[in-house]
Amino acid sequence: MQSIEYKRLPKHIGIIPDGNRRWATHNNKDKHEGYQFGINPGVALYEKCLGLGIQELTFYGFTQDNAKRPKVQTQAFQTACVDAVMALTHKDANISVIGNTHSKVFPDELIDFANKRVPFGKGLMNINFLINYGWQWDLEYASSNKNEKHFYDKIASSDISRMDLIIRWGGRRRLSGFLPVQSVYSDFYIVDELWPDYQDDHLYQALDWYQSQDVTLGG
Amino acid sequence: MQSIEYKRLPKHIGIIPDGNRRWATHNNKDKHEGYQFGINPGVALYEKCLGLGIQELTFYGFTQDNAKRPKVQTQAFQTACVDAVMALTHKDANISVIGNTHSKVFPDELIDFANKRVPFGKGLMNINFLINYGWQWDLEYASSNKNEKHFYDKIASSDISRMDLIIRWGGRRRLSGFLPVQSVYSDFYIVDELWPDYQDDHLYQALDWYQSQDVTLGG
Repeated sequence: MQSIEYKRLPKHIGIIPDGNRRWATHNNKDKHEGYQFGINPGVALYEKCLGLGIQELTFYGFTQDNAKRPKVQTQAFQTACVDAVMALTHKDANISVIGNTHSKVFPDELIDFANKRVPFGKGLMNINFLINYGWQWDLEYASSNKNEKHFYDKIASSDISRMDLIIRWGGRRRLSGFLPVQSVYSDFYIVDELWPDYQDDHLYQALDWYQSQDVTLGG
Repeated sequence: MQSIEYKRLPKHIGIIPDGNRRWATHNNKDKHEGYQFGINPGVALYEKCLGLGIQELTFYGFTQDNAKRPKVQTQAFQTACVDAVMALTHKDANISVIGNTHSKVFPDELIDFANKRVPFGKGLMNINFLINYGWQWDLEYASSNKNEKHFYDKIASSDISRMDLIIRWGGRRRLSGFLPVQSVYSDFYIVDELWPDYQDDHLYQALDWYQSQDVTLGG
């Protein structure tokens, strides 16, 4: 449970919800069945973050590389991502989906959210989903974008702000291509438990740890 | 001490040698005095990595942002970086310095190493130093580089390969702008001890941990 009043809260938390397939295997299911068990954790996390006053959440949905997995898995995480976005349209969130829409892998159901921000309810939080995202796609976009001065305004994901804290479930300590520009100064917290085993305590542990980190931005 | 034979070794290790100023404060010195105590650890780490068969090392020297620090500190880390490069010219290494040379902050002594690779001794390992590096400088370079097809061949640091493992000393869990492209799939290991307190055991602990990490590259 939440143990302290937070003196220092991240404005923007990036979420890497890893471990769905391993969770399925541990629970005697086929790997692709794990993804559906990652939807409710996302809604629960949103509710807790909203209560705490977090202003922005970004979920790492799936990447162009992920889509090279077996078709049954690809279809399963596409469906799970659509369901997760739809679940959050019933909440108070401004939703944006960032990813390459020029691909059959990008779900039709999310095209109306793509690369714009759609308000729902009271619009109390910005929520971004990366869907058919690729770090090279994101960065290469800058070369053709002559309207902006700063690199971070030129990239495909420029509507997503810098992340203060990244929490990764599933024990792995790597970014796996998650927003290379917005993550340059992010503090990185690892939860060993798999994402479908999400508990609010994981979030509180990450925030407890975040209290003790200072922000220097290289200065 | 080294406890096991490594079945799986990183080809390329990135080093974030953080904590020099904190170490100085803990040891009743002025902050800027800490940097000189970071040179011998770098040489010791090189020796151990060479013995293990590591093919490439990249040291995060200093950034354009770091150069906004008080002048006495800036001069101290410039000097320490020059001394570190020079110490390694007596070893068997191919040395390259990557950074923005169009600035007074870039040390004159390193200009001959800048953005090329200079062989020393038997040339058994590639060693890269980031000197007056900036992640925006690195990525923005791609926009003006029309000769290459892939984004990672266009950036200013394109001669530096993908890092398999990043080890950061000093307890902080963030990249701080360290090679955003080469770090997208890197495993990230944190040593709580400060860099001047380097011990070979830190390296061995990181490599022990690395044994158990799998490489998926998103697949």
